[in-house]
Amino acid sequence: MSDRPAVRPTPVSGFPEWLPHVRLVEPRWLDAIRAAFERYGFCSVETPSAERLDVLLSKGDTSKEVYTLGRVHDGDQDPTGDDSRLGLRFDLTVPLARYTAQHFNDLVFPFKRYQIQRVWRGERPQDGRFREFTQCDIDVINPGEVPIHFDAELPRIVHEVLTSLDLPAWTINVNNRKVLQGFYEGLGISRPLDVVRAVDKIDKIGPDGVARVLADRLDPAQLRSVLRLAGLRGGPAEVRELGVRSPLLDEGLEELDFVLRELSDLPGVVADFSIARGLDYYTGTVYEGKFVDWPEYGAICSGGRYDDLAGSFSRRELPGVGMSIGFSRIFAKVLSAGLLDPGPSSPADVLVVLPKDRRPIATSTARTLRDRGFNVELYHQEDKVAKQLRYASRKGIGFAWFPPFEDGRPHEVKDLAAGTQTTTDPTTWSPGGQRPANRSGTGANG
Amino acid sequence: MSDRPAVRPTPVSGFPEWLPHVRLVEPRWLDAIRAAFERYGFCSVETPSAERLDVLLSKGDTSKEVYTLGRVHDGDQDPTGDDSRLGLRFDLTVPLARYTAQHFNDLVFPFKRYQIQRVWRGERPQDGRFREFTQCDIDVINPGEVPIHFDAELPRIVHEVLTSLDLPAWTINVNNRKVLQGFYEGLGISRPLDVVRAVDKIDKIGPDGVARVLADRLDPAQLRSVLRLAGLRGGPAEVRELGVRSPLLDEGLEELDFVLRELSDLPGVVADFSIARGLDYYTGTVYEGKFVDWPEYGAICSGGRYDDLAGSFSRRELPGVGMSIGFSRIFAKVLSAGLLDPGPSSPADVLVVLPKDRRPIATSTARTLRDRGFNVELYHQEDKVAKQLRYASRKGIGFAWFPPFEDGRPHEVKDLAAGTQTTTDPTTWSPGGQRPANRSGTGANG
Repeated sequence: MSDRPAVRPTPVSGFPEWLPHVRLVEPRWLDAIRAAFERYGFCSVETPSAERLDVLLSKGDTSKEVYTLGRVHDGDQDPTGDDSRLGLRFDLTVPLARYTAQHFNDLVFPFKRYQIQRVWRGERPQDGRFREFTQCDIDVINPGEVPIHFDAELPRIVHEVLTSLDLPAWTINVNNRKVLQGFYEGLGISRPLDVVRAVDKIDKIGPDGVARVLADRLDPAQLRSVLRLAGLRGGPAEVRELGVRSPLLDEGLEELDFVLRELSDLPGVVADFSIARGLDYYTGTVYEGKFVDWPEYGAICSGGRYDDLAGSFSRRELPGVGMSIGFSRIFAKVLSAGLLDPGPSSPADVLVVLPKDRRPIATSTARTLRDRGFNVELYHQEDKVAKQLRYASRKGIGFAWFPPFEDGRPHEVKDLAAGTQTTTDPTTWSPGGQRPANRSGTGANG
Repeated sequence: MSDRPAVRPTPVSGFPEWLPHVRLVEPRWLDAIRAAFERYGFCSVETPSAERLDVLLSKGDTSKEVYTLGRVHDGDQDPTGDDSRLGLRFDLTVPLARYTAQHFNDLVFPFKRYQIQRVWRGERPQDGRFREFTQCDIDVINPGEVPIHFDAELPRIVHEVLTSLDLPAWTINVNNRKVLQGFYEGLGISRPLDVVRAVDKIDKIGPDGVARVLADRLDPAQLRSVLRLAGLRGGPAEVRELGVRSPLLDEGLEELDFVLRELSDLPGVVADFSIARGLDYYTGTVYEGKFVDWPEYGAICSGGRYDDLAGSFSRRELPGVGMSIGFSRIFAKVLSAGLLDPGPSSPADVLVVLPKDRRPIATSTARTLRDRGFNVELYHQEDKVAKQLRYASRKGIGFAWFPPFEDGRPHEVKDLAAGTQTTTDPTTWSPGGQRPANRSGTGANG
């Protein structure tokens, strides 16, 4: 058994990776997301994967999920002395808060940034939950005030993104924390935030579960009203019909009404009074996107408005509004549901077949086609043509190109899907009316 | 002092991050690199940031630099039981070896992949050395044989990349490990690999340092010849003139000759017999790119040919050839040398100014321009026009757009750099002959 490999290469649970034909789709999605974010004037920010632990833990209650950084041998000297205080980010919001506070004087406000990066959480992996995954976040921060119009602009951008990805049916559900808290206040409930937190779990534990959690704290009439609001179908008008009143509720309903009206042209944007988003820092509008056919699957996007993002890092109040798209969660679900249209395993439009003893003409043909913006693979092994074509087919390359076997003869190109072969010229060829399906967003003209 | 922030947001040494106007340049560079890699038919692969420690440490001698993953409280239960055996990748070669071995039956060979991702090394940060940085790797792997033509194709691709980035002068230096080992064998040196490793340090310790290291092992004539080869100017012909002979040397010179001839049209590709690339797995061609004016700065790209990449993970021999571009190292140097042309801090082409009480016309104007492919920011605060223009200028947005203040009047657009203001129409406007400089690669037509 001495010729056995020393290390068995096996997958690490919760850290997904894809084969080339699946991976080829990912950057196309990410390009579409990036383009949408930039179309609305959001700038890109990337932050280090590691943050100081005191930064990561400043919001409390996430410490169990945080990965810390260490060294192979505990005894090893840390060359800088501070590694032991580093951990991997678990979201993109804490790094944004730290970044905004740290670079405050160098930023122009309103600061509109997007961030597309990986985050890490040491949770138990399950359907839609990974230990390493990619988030696409978009936030507006402005010391002082952030106009409510941004509350409507962000879901519009996310709607544009999700639409462009051609996903199975989804909705973006909108609520407002002031509606919940104001409604509970109107019912005479003393600590409404506790009720918000309980209602937030309704997806997982159901109305009965929420009722059990709140049974000690609310009287039966209050509880009925709380559950009626959570289950309400309709919008702000239907909430008003419930007859509960409070100044905060009025304010919340007005804000929610505004956001919904601004987005009334978008299918799939709906009010949902069961959404609370458990995190304490949301103070107004809240969002949560879901797949219609997989209600038990986690949120595909989420976010909301906060009055003070960077409280731990800055004396300034930094209000803002943000949304996060769960890229890996969406991608993995579409993939596992068999709904991803996996591409070829090569970005090449053309394989230039190597003619026996005529490498220079193959090389110059490949160069001509590349200069014209095509992705071109040149076959380097002196294999039989049949083997070269099999290679192209297996990689999903659309066209095989035959440089002439002797001078003075024309080039030929074979459409491997159609099986047709025609004479052609590398300086003028085009693959037909359409760009080949396997072009990435960064390619040039066709 | 109770209003002091609890956590001071400060940079973490060795983990760079950029302000928006600098960051805006990075994706443009990465897009260019990705496009070049795909132009030659290389497919994208991404691997998890974390690998099992036994995978990471399979090559030995790097353990001190590897970051391991842990939890905040040592007592915390690890929900999967294997976190303690994970570490962050320190390069993209070990993950490639693991990936190729693990997915062997699902890959089409020759497997041509590129990988653009971050890697982590717990070293002391210094000029050009970070603890988190981005590498852009490109490799060809084929069980059996990898034609020597790939040894020439890879530096051509990297040359194309470096040229497109408009960097200060650089060279790609090429050597062949067989030339070094064969030459030392021809000198009668018994363990030539030890000499290779000593010569590899010549950049740092100079010829005298190499002489000191080898003084015990070589006789003075051998040492003189070793140093003469390392300092040789010229190519294979000049090596042959030194009069040393061995079969391995002949083989190496022939390979090197081939690669250099194939690349003879490329300025800045030169033979350099001092390059060894210390890593043991290189067995033929080796590459190392350097900035001409900063010879003491680390390699900006490097790589070479290996006979067996995945020896630890697979019973199969997996020979290949690869190159790695030190993206962060190049970017940081160009930035710190003041040679980076930093962009605006917004990707927006146009800021649509919000006219008092006429938000709908501003919104529809922004939509029209976005639909035409422009990146457009809509100002949401009801501020004075002067403040809105100042905002556009500070973010480096090229054009301010004035929707009509009353119906029937024309739109106007102001070129903020030129200071000129003209009437226009959102359905036909174009910014002039040129695309604005601040367009990212993912934008649409201008």
